[in-house]
Amino acid sequence: MHARKRIEIVVEAVRAESVTDLLDRLGAPGWTILPVTAGRGRQGLRRGGDPGGVFDNVLILCIASAEVAARVVAAQQELLGAKPAIVSISETEVLRAEHF
Amino acid sequence: MHARKRIEIVVEAVRAESVTDLLDRLGAPGWTILPVTAGRGRQGLRRGGDPGGVFDNVLILCIASAEVAARVVAAQQELLGAKPAIVSISETEVLRAEHF
Amino acid sequence: MHARKRIEIVVEAVRAESVTDLLDRLGAPGWTILPVTAGRGRQGLRRGGDPGGVFDNVLILCIASAEVAARVVAAQQELLGAKPAIVSISETEVLRAEHF
Repeated sequence: MHARKRIEIVVEAVRAESVTDLLDRLGAPGWTILPVTAGRGRQGLRRGGDPGGVFDNVLILCIASAEVAARVVAAQQELLGAKPAIVSISETEVLRAEHF
Repeated sequence: MHARKRIEIVVEAVRAESVTDLLDRLGAPGWTILPVTAGRGRQGLRRGGDPGGVFDNVLILCIASAEVAARVVAAQQELLGAKPAIVSISETEVLRAEHF
Repeated sequence: MHARKRIEIVVEAVRAESVTDLLDRLGAPGWTILPVTAGRGRQGLRRGGDPGGVFDNVLILCIASAEVAARVVAAQQELLGAKPAIVSISETEVLRAEHF
């Protein structure tokens, strides 16, 4: 197993592409988007299915090297421009070093 | 980056609000709900889309301080009353200390 | 709290059952499946809702003992046969030792 970083970003669906574009530019090997149905944060409660869906959130999961994760942290000003509800980075391990 | 706890609870959708109400009362800064389509656990196999949806599960994700996480553990009797399939707490780091 | 492993596998929906069957055979106490709406990986970009849904991915979450996680790693040849986009294992803690 090989040590990697697990980056988890919760953001409005309409801003997800700006985040994944940033991850792409920073050299992330890939990312996965999961739907979010509801949440509460500093902006109060929100539920999916609002008219237009503009308040719907998604969770972007990205497994990357420590180097890429450090670039994400260094690019935090641009990342925070997408107004994410969560940016969380934790330790993980992967089977295939060549994939991440 | 700032050390926080990543609390992950899988529970029946109909009991999710009792869990998020508990998180709110314990001082969690927020939470995010993701849909679950199927699962196997001690109760056997279950799939989303059962009649009435009453067996549908959701995943509640909460990033919080160690203090809030300790309160969740201390409140486990109430939490387990919602019959969660999973209550898992791991280490993570966040960009913005003031948000979590 | 009791130390466990958090196993996270992203795989095509049509191959999910081969992964969960493997987890069952290796003694996993359970698993949870979350939908994935889009992703980018070595295979390029993919979005859910493709005709037939055969390219849709799911995320399989499994909390298990270190012993079961070691068996998953040992069975990696079979696991990788399902062509997962991600196989990631991290440390976590659970409330109830007897459940996992």
